[in-house]
Amino acid sequence: METWVDGQPADALSLKDRGLAYGDGLFETIAVRDGFPVMLDRHLVRLARGCQRLTINLDHEAVVTELVTYAGQLNEGVLKLIVTRGDSLRGYAFDPSAPARRILSGNPPAAYPESHAEQGIRLFPCATRLSLQPLLAGLKHLNRLEQVMARAEWRDSEHAEGLMLDQDGRVIEGVFSNLFLVRDGVLITADLSRCGVEGVMRAELLSQAESLGIATQISDITLEQLQTADEVFVCNSVYGVWPVHAYADCHWPVGPLTRKLQTIAHALLDV
Amino acid sequence: METWVDGQPADALSLKDRGLAYGDGLFETIAVRDGFPVMLDRHLVRLARGCQRLTINLDHEAVVTELVTYAGQLNEGVLKLIVTRGDSLRGYAFDPSAPARRILSGNPPAAYPESHAEQGIRLFPCATRLSLQPLLAGLKHLNRLEQVMARAEWRDSEHAEGLMLDQDGRVIEGVFSNLFLVRDGVLITADLSRCGVEGVMRAELLSQAESLGIATQISDITLEQLQTADEVFVCNSVYGVWPVHAYADCHWPVGPLTRKLQTIAHALLDV
Repeated sequence: METWVDGQPADALSLKDRGLAYGDGLFETIAVRDGFPVMLDRHLVRLARGCQRLTINLDHEAVVTELVTYAGQLNEGVLKLIVTRGDSLRGYAFDPSAPARRILSGNPPAAYPESHAEQGIRLFPCATRLSLQPLLAGLKHLNRLEQVMARAEWRDSEHAEGLMLDQDGRVIEGVFSNLFLVRDGVLITADLSRCGVEGVMRAELLSQAESLGIATQISDITLEQLQTADEVFVCNSVYGVWPVHAYADCHWPVGPLTRKLQTIAHALLDV
Repeated sequence: METWVDGQPADALSLKDRGLAYGDGLFETIAVRDGFPVMLDRHLVRLARGCQRLTINLDHEAVVTELVTYAGQLNEGVLKLIVTRGDSLRGYAFDPSAPARRILSGNPPAAYPESHAEQGIRLFPCATRLSLQPLLAGLKHLNRLEQVMARAEWRDSEHAEGLMLDQDGRVIEGVFSNLFLVRDGVLITADLSRCGVEGVMRAELLSQAESLGIATQISDITLEQLQTADEVFVCNSVYGVWPVHAYADCHWPVGPLTRKLQTIAHALLDV
């Protein structure tokens, strides 16, 4: 499908864009089903939080209109919104009143093997560590070299995702997913106040679990806690939930809470 | 002056470019004097090291030809080269054999007040800390949100640069400069193996100092060592050397070693 810049069909970007120059912006990757952006509200909340943290002056009303209209035309697939701080003056300084640029593109539905969701996946142990930066933690910003480097560590199809630790060795997330453990019936995911991306599906699953009376916990996670977990799964807003059956020498069964939350996620995504 | 993409005049970039999507690339900002890129060799060395670290498949011969030709047309000013990993497939994975994209743009000479070089500058104490990431440390890569956030901390003209510490409180560099201290006749600059950008002027000044028999030291620097230094200055490959006369409550005279290295830098830059 065609790409839009600021609501108009366009296939190219200004060479002065600060997204290119500095990664100065944010993005959202949104599943589209039956012409509608799935979990639109949660994506908008995260985007707004990112704009606030980075002082990006985004026309939020225009974004909503464009997302809904674009999704209507895409109908089924994955929509990507990139928001940048627009064109650069010279150097890092910016005019906080300058309007942000909105870039929309669309792709067909992602094609992953069905076995990822059914039998689960093996996680690659990434050597690339996430650096600690509370100022940017949680945001889906455009500075993604750590993920690029981590994803380049494996090329086989045996590993569907990679596990990333932070510089201090805490278990944080996948390269393009959030991670959950189940221990003694408690659903646990990493504290993302120092690094990591606060995924929309992560937020949805935490909320759904609470509605179901399942205890949830957001905390630091050690490798030992991962290794001794009862269930492990990863999630994102495009593929939903994949059980994790293996990581290095560890193996886990696909557990009942993973299946319950997977059913909820896949109903939302209609997969 | 017009911009070039892969050696051809162009004013727009593919919306699939990985520089935009992930900050997946590198850049060089090069002073141009009398039609020639100043310290071209050092810029090329740093660029090559960056490409090697990020596995970016750059046509280095084409870069040299384009830089020299472009600088010849610009004649006087500042040239910016951005190298990206080219267009994205879907997601973070990349084809390591895919050719990198080369983007060249030019600006007139930077116009800073003469007093910066003559009387020196005051450094703003940035609250934004540099995160520790040995994998990317030293490179002039496109993930520059920390610098964008740091530069946004002050808007007055009283501060010409800002001082950035790392997450552990070590003194590292300016937002767009490297930093040097002089203590007991020794020229000291920060170890950049965990964070920071290995500036071309920093490398040049270290080399020149050694030729002059001045003792040099690359090491961790504490705030206390900064505060009790005999001389402090910042440098980059565009403006050369600015003495630092003040930071928070600290004041320094413009010292003889600063002036000596400034003279060398400004002869190179013809300013």
